[in-house]
Amino acid sequence: MDVDEPVCLPRLSRIAVCGGTHGNELPGVYLVRDVLKLQRRASEGEEDDGEEHTSMLTVLSNPRAVQQCRRYTDTDLNRCFTLATLNGPTSDSPPYEVLRAQELNTMLGPKGGPGAVDLVCDLHSTTANMGLCFIAYSDCDWICLHIFKHLQRRMPDTPMRFIHLGISGKESYSLDSVGKHGFAMEIGPQPHGGVRSDIYAVMSAGVRHMLDWVGLFNSGAVFEGGWVDVFTLVKNIDYPRDSKTHNITAAIHSHLQVCPCRNVRIQISSLEVDKLTSSPQTQATIFFKLHFF
Amino acid sequence: MDVDEPVCLPRLSRIAVCGGTHGNELPGVYLVRDVLKLQRRASEGEEDDGEEHTSMLTVLSNPRAVQQCRRYTDTDLNRCFTLATLNGPTSDSPPYEVLRAQELNTMLGPKGGPGAVDLVCDLHSTTANMGLCFIAYSDCDWICLHIFKHLQRRMPDTPMRFIHLGISGKESYSLDSVGKHGFAMEIGPQPHGGVRSDIYAVMSAGVRHMLDWVGLFNSGAVFEGGWVDVFTLVKNIDYPRDSKTHNITAAIHSHLQVCPCRNVRIQISSLEVDKLTSSPQTQATIFFKLHFF
Repeated sequence: MDVDEPVCLPRLSRIAVCGGTHGNELPGVYLVRDVLKLQRRASEGEEDDGEEHTSMLTVLSNPRAVQQCRRYTDTDLNRCFTLATLNGPTSDSPPYEVLRAQELNTMLGPKGGPGAVDLVCDLHSTTANMGLCFIAYSDCDWICLHIFKHLQRRMPDTPMRFIHLGISGKESYSLDSVGKHGFAMEIGPQPHGGVRSDIYAVMSAGVRHMLDWVGLFNSGAVFEGGWVDVFTLVKNIDYPRDSKTHNITAAIHSHLQVCPCRNVRIQISSLEVDKLTSSPQTQATIFFKLHFF
Repeated sequence: MDVDEPVCLPRLSRIAVCGGTHGNELPGVYLVRDVLKLQRRASEGEEDDGEEHTSMLTVLSNPRAVQQCRRYTDTDLNRCFTLATLNGPTSDSPPYEVLRAQELNTMLGPKGGPGAVDLVCDLHSTTANMGLCFIAYSDCDWICLHIFKHLQRRMPDTPMRFIHLGISGKESYSLDSVGKHGFAMEIGPQPHGGVRSDIYAVMSAGVRHMLDWVGLFNSGAVFEGGWVDVFTLVKNIDYPRDSKTHNITAAIHSHLQVCPCRNVRIQISSLEVDKLTSSPQTQATIFFKLHFF
C-alpha cells in the first residue's frame, strides 16, 4: 500500500471497552465499574437530541472470576475467542469461560461478521514494568496504530509500546479479536488483586484519549501518517523446572527484570473517515463524558 | 526488668521454618522447597556423629492453597491458630485450613505446651514496599529481638522493621504463635503469584543469618543489649465502599503508597544461653548448610 495516499475507513459507530477479562487485574475492573456508574447517571438525565451518537458498550467480561479475584475460574477466558471455540459444539458441562466467551461473542460480535462492534479495547494489567502497551494481532490496522500515536502525543510522560502478536485472524484467541478493530491495553507494573492509583490514572487517561480520538475521527478529522515502533514476539521460553515435580526452579535474574525488546519501525498512512460509507453528519461525539480523579 | 543484667534463656533445640502459609506468596514456597531438597540430599549422606544438633523442621504450611496459587482455599490459615480454633470441636465438614491448622499444631506444638518447637519463623511476602519486616506478638521476646538486631547488622543495605501486633498470646492467631518463640518474616514489594529474584535473595539471606544466630546462641555466645525501633499497629482503616454493592471505590493515593509509620524505641537486654538448663556441649550447629544463589 502506498503510504502517501490517505486511507479512508468507515466511522466507528459502536465501540466496546472491556475490563475484568482476567478477574484479578483490578484497574480495568475499577474503570469499567466507574464508567458503568457514569453511564447509568448519564442515561437517567439523557434526552434524545435526534443526533446519531457513537455508542459505547462497557463490559465486565468475567464477573465470576472478578468475584473470586482470580485470573479465571475454569479456563483462561482470553484464550476462548478462537472461531473453533466460539462456534464449536460444547460438552455436557462446558467450562464457565467457554459459555461466557460465546455470550460475549453474541453481545459484541459475531467475530468476523458484519454485525460485530467496530472497535474493542480490552483493559489488562500486568506485574511486568511494561508501561502502557497496545497488544494487537495486526501491524497494519490503521485505526489501532493511529489511536496509539494519538496516545503517545497526549501522554508524553508515559512509556508506551505497540506489541504485534503475529497470529492470523483465524487463530486469534482474545476478546479484542471479536471487534472489527481491537487491541488489549496492558499496563504495568501492577500487582494482581490490587489497584495502584498511578496505574489507574494512566489507564483512565488512555481510555479518555482513545475516546477523544474516536470522536475526532468520526467528525471528519484527517490524521497525518508517520512512524510507529512495533515490538514483535520472538519466542516463548519456559522457566527451568524440576524434572520430577515440574515445579519452577528459577526466577528471572534481577539484571533482566526489564529486558530489552526487539522492535521494527512501521510507516503508517494518513487517515480519515470515509464520508461515502459513513452517515452524513459531520459531528458525532461519544455520548457521555468521563470524569476521573 | 533491669536491662543491664544479662538474660539467660534455654537453648533452641528445635526450630521450624515455614512457607506457603499463604499459597500465593511464592518466595517462601520456593525457599521451603529448596531447603527440603537440600535436607533430603544432606540426610542421604548423613552419618551420626554422636553430637546433639539443632533440628530444623521445614514446612510447606498450606499445600492445597499453594497448588492453586491462592492465599487460601476455604479460610485464611494464618487466622486459625487461636487456642479456640485449635482445641475447639469441629463441624461435620470443617474448612480445610482448620484441619490443616490442627495438623500443624500437632507437628509443631501443641501451642502453649512444653513440647512446642522453640522457634517458628514463618515466611511471607507482600505487595507493599515494606523491606524485610519481623511481625511478632511481643515486644519483649529477647530471642526475636536479638535475631532482628543480628539481621540488621548483617544486612545493612536492606530496609528492616520490627512490627509489634500488641495482641495477647491467648488471642494470637498466626502460625508463628505455635512456637515458644516465633515471628513472621514478611518481605516486599513482591507481587503475589510470582517470585522476584531480589526478594528471594533477601529472604534467603534473612533465613541464613537467623540460622547462624541460633547456632551462635546455642554454642554459648553472649549478645550485647541495645536498642530496637519497634513499630506498632495504630488501627485498621477500611477503604471507602459503594453503599449498595460494597465494592471498594478508591485506591491509596500515590503520595501515600509508602506512608510514615509510628515507632517506639525499646531497650533490650544482653542475652546468652542458659547453661544450667541446656545440654552440656558448647558446640551445637544447624545440621546442614544452606546454599542459595
